[in-house]
Amino acid sequence: MTATTTMPPINPVADGVLPSGIGEVIAYGAGRTGLIPLWVGEGDRPTPDFIGEAAARALRDGHTFYTDMLGIPALRQEIAAYVGRLYGGSPEPDRFFVTVGGMQAFQIALAIAAQPGDEIVIPTPIWPNFFGAIAAHGAKSVTVPIGFDPASGWSLDVERLAAAVTPRTRALVINSPANPTGWTASRDDLRALLTIARRHDLWIIADEIYGRFSFDPAHADLGRAPSFRDVWEPDDHGRVLFVQTFSKNWAMTGWRLGWLEGPPALGRIVAGLVLYGTSGIATFLQHAAVTALREGEPLVRAQIAQAREGRRILCEGLGRLPGVALPPPAGAFYAFPQVATEPDARRLALRLVDEANVGVAPGTAFGPGGEGFLRLCFARSAADLQEAVHRLAPVLASPGARP
Amino acid sequence: MTATTTMPPINPVADGVLPSGIGEVIAYGAGRTGLIPLWVGEGDRPTPDFIGEAAARALRDGHTFYTDMLGIPALRQEIAAYVGRLYGGSPEPDRFFVTVGGMQAFQIALAIAAQPGDEIVIPTPIWPNFFGAIAAHGAKSVTVPIGFDPASGWSLDVERLAAAVTPRTRALVINSPANPTGWTASRDDLRALLTIARRHDLWIIADEIYGRFSFDPAHADLGRAPSFRDVWEPDDHGRVLFVQTFSKNWAMTGWRLGWLEGPPALGRIVAGLVLYGTSGIATFLQHAAVTALREGEPLVRAQIAQAREGRRILCEGLGRLPGVALPPPAGAFYAFPQVATEPDARRLALRLVDEANVGVAPGTAFGPGGEGFLRLCFARSAADLQEAVHRLAPVLASPGARP
Repeated sequence: MTATTTMPPINPVADGVLPSGIGEVIAYGAGRTGLIPLWVGEGDRPTPDFIGEAAARALRDGHTFYTDMLGIPALRQEIAAYVGRLYGGSPEPDRFFVTVGGMQAFQIALAIAAQPGDEIVIPTPIWPNFFGAIAAHGAKSVTVPIGFDPASGWSLDVERLAAAVTPRTRALVINSPANPTGWTASRDDLRALLTIARRHDLWIIADEIYGRFSFDPAHADLGRAPSFRDVWEPDDHGRVLFVQTFSKNWAMTGWRLGWLEGPPALGRIVAGLVLYGTSGIATFLQHAAVTALREGEPLVRAQIAQAREGRRILCEGLGRLPGVALPPPAGAFYAFPQVATEPDARRLALRLVDEANVGVAPGTAFGPGGEGFLRLCFARSAADLQEAVHRLAPVLASPGARP
Repeated sequence: MTATTTMPPINPVADGVLPSGIGEVIAYGAGRTGLIPLWVGEGDRPTPDFIGEAAARALRDGHTFYTDMLGIPALRQEIAAYVGRLYGGSPEPDRFFVTVGGMQAFQIALAIAAQPGDEIVIPTPIWPNFFGAIAAHGAKSVTVPIGFDPASGWSLDVERLAAAVTPRTRALVINSPANPTGWTASRDDLRALLTIARRHDLWIIADEIYGRFSFDPAHADLGRAPSFRDVWEPDDHGRVLFVQTFSKNWAMTGWRLGWLEGPPALGRIVAGLVLYGTSGIATFLQHAAVTALREGEPLVRAQIAQAREGRRILCEGLGRLPGVALPPPAGAFYAFPQVATEPDARRLALRLVDEANVGVAPGTAFGPGGEGFLRLCFARSAADLQEAVHRLAPVLASPGARP
């Protein structure tokens, strides 16, 4: 603490929780006129009116009281139906627990799986909030960098991941399609991960929130990215905790609505952790989420189509620049180019604010393996992305800082 | 776990988080036609339209994106102005951190103050969510029962509380006016508590959420209950963490909006804990909270007047029954009678569902000292409360269970 205020001792675990490395660049670029913000995982589209109107209607109807800690039954049923439509089967509504975004879903999954001091194995580069939540819990992130090939892209070495498991390991965090790399687990990868988890009796915390943003022709038969659901055995149903969010598919980032999926027997524990953490979610927001699931399919398809076009624009516009390696990502909605002309990604991200008026996230924010890379969100209008390419290209292609 | 699903090992801290003792009675009485629910701390009034409309307006205006982890500046300023109006002075907006209800404010305060294994001293009977949050954090509640006198009511023995402090103690949790007892700290009590905290370098986590529901003529000069703010020294400004909520004053229980107040230097830590826990609060809800603070004073006054009348109805209607001791509570909005005819409060609460069709909370849910008591919320219409008295009186006055 740099504080001058006199305070009693602060829990060192809380004191050690660090801000994300993306925040520094955002703070640096905040307020710049005309800056194109590609630094966070958020589109440029406000939540459509049909969802907002559902919330307003529920408000007028007086849905403003305390509610069930696990979510209103109508929403749990609608989520189960949605997951059934997308992945097949008829999952029980009792498997779904409504949370304050995917972030609280992850926090609760972690609290179930690990005690302070326990280890969590996590492939990197990855969304830094995982590290943050693990640190805030007093647990330890054990990172396993995934491989990068400028031609073929990112790949997970499952044996290397297995070698990182120790007697203190309690969970694997598997984000596929991954933020920021777009790495997408194949069905074989997922089977191998389940085998490791079974062998060591580990939880799998599965973040498949970008599952519908899948661009690899290898998975075209599914119409989405492969999921643990495609390959699991009945005994695995109690081992995989899925974290999910309304943020991306339904353009609801700011709403803070998501869900945790796991065995119904966890309901008692999740209810307790929610009660003593945040005490549930406004019912009028949950009614809007029901509407999003029931009526939002055209919206989701439009979001996916926009991202597909955004991916094309960034990959074609930046991937051919000298010194830039950008194999098209298999999934999610980020370009994650390696930029040889400036290996200090943090410095480059700050430069791009000044020299291109474009906001990007430095790869260093995403853990080991992210050095020398940048993350650019392409869930955005084609016009913005074309302009961003136009501004970025000269800076990325020229070595070093301007005088 | 009674689960039959095969699951990896569960963190015993999470597994040990128990539901509140109020929930059992609610589950028992759920769905009974005509039941008058006095079991939770919630009025019967939905959030007024002027607040809901502000949220709907902000939704239409597209306030649906990610936002600042500490709250939008407009709300932090409005909270600071409100606190200044109520308590005097001009507190800095940087002292106020917007949270998912008072519950997340408490959870964050606790994470700042204590590590797993640390001790938190807390007078009882008290709101059970404090115990739950302390247990979920892996810390230990050290309870100090406050004294009850059937004539004069509840009083805190500050020396007894001081004797409960050990080298592992990190914080005192002081809820005044208290749920469920209505106990309200005098200015002398508050000075004595600050002295203890200074002596042992402890945090004080102050829950003054019922501060405006103050009925003791001794505090009529303040127009509210005494606050740590009335008696603290400048050096204490870094020691007291206030948890607050929009739930009670503004009839917004289900919204999950509150705030934590503490030294600005904690902002970095709070931002991290929010980012990695829930990632902020919907901005359209925060805009509604701004409206609640700006335009809600008549609402708050109506809520207080209703509670004052509710207190009169319950205390006059139940306090004179044979075997019932109910000195009028000094603050908050609960009657907490001691019922001699049935010392098993849990059993009595279940009986009252069957025999009176009234939902009450058993005193046992509130920790040591609550045995033999019941909690009834009087933030409700006079008609409902009169009917509740009419139904409760014959059961409370008759010894033992009916056959």
